[in-house]
Amino acid sequence: MANPEFMREAIRLSIENVKNGGGPFGAVIVKDDQIIATGTNRVTANHDPTAHAEVSAIREACRRLDTFDLGGCEIYTSCEPCPMCLGAIYWAHIDKIYYGNNKTDAAAIGFDDSFIYDELALPREERQKAMEKLLPEEAIAAFELWTKTTDKTEY
Amino acid sequence: MANPEFMREAIRLSIENVKNGGGPFGAVIVKDDQIIATGTNRVTANHDPTAHAEVSAIREACRRLDTFDLGGCEIYTSCEPCPMCLGAIYWAHIDKIYYGNNKTDAAAIGFDDSFIYDELALPREERQKAMEKLLPEEAIAAFELWTKTTDKTEY
Repeated sequence: MANPEFMREAIRLSIENVKNGGGPFGAVIVKDDQIIATGTNRVTANHDPTAHAEVSAIREACRRLDTFDLGGCEIYTSCEPCPMCLGAIYWAHIDKIYYGNNKTDAAAIGFDDSFIYDELALPREERQKAMEKLLPEEAIAAFELWTKTTDKTEY
Repeated sequence: MANPEFMREAIRLSIENVKNGGGPFGAVIVKDDQIIATGTNRVTANHDPTAHAEVSAIREACRRLDTFDLGGCEIYTSCEPCPMCLGAIYWAHIDKIYYGNNKTDAAAIGFDDSFIYDELALPREERQKAMEKLLPEEAIAAFELWTKTTDKTEY
């Protein structure tokens, strides 16, 4: 069940972050009706292009819970996650996403979310970002070793 | 121009990482024909679902160059980036991507790359991951503040 107070906290963080020299984005991760981690966009402040609100909150939640699996958690984010953050949410196995603004709103104030969504949906060769396959016959060795390895942690 | 030796280093890291209890993925970031950062998949080892090889290499490169903009850099990754990592590569403004294995190879050994690509290409309401819009009329305040703020760092 959506709890508007958690979204209000994400929004409060997003506003506060602008005042603190960051981007207008905030997120909170909730488990058992408690906030277990928060995040804001600190890309320019921390010199980390991956430090979006959601990624920051996921990393913090994993540190606090000492796990790489946030199954049983929900994320409230002041803006629809970009592809990087949505990918991170899938990898973290977060159950559900609540969002305030959307990718169109983000594009309107100069953020590339919509553009990146469009790019990712295109076949590799049609994207603006150049991608080139190299040495696949050598690269496969790591996957073969992974398959043969029995004492590994899958996720 | 592609330099196979940089890909060989990414592949070497991917193989070594399996032996060190990590996933079969490695990446290097190159600028001016020099490796400036490397990364491997440490998701399970570090309890960080965002610690893929490419994200780790991007964070390290930004730390070393003291910037959030990796324009002028190229990434060599032992496997095609997943959506999270590809998103990070766009946000970091890396010029070009060289990859060895692809998302189909990754899916074949149990990684969700292809599934997440398929999900992101779907309209929100058709995805398996539940997404719900909440309080957009309140969330927009942060974007309005961002627009009005003049001493901000855009990217």
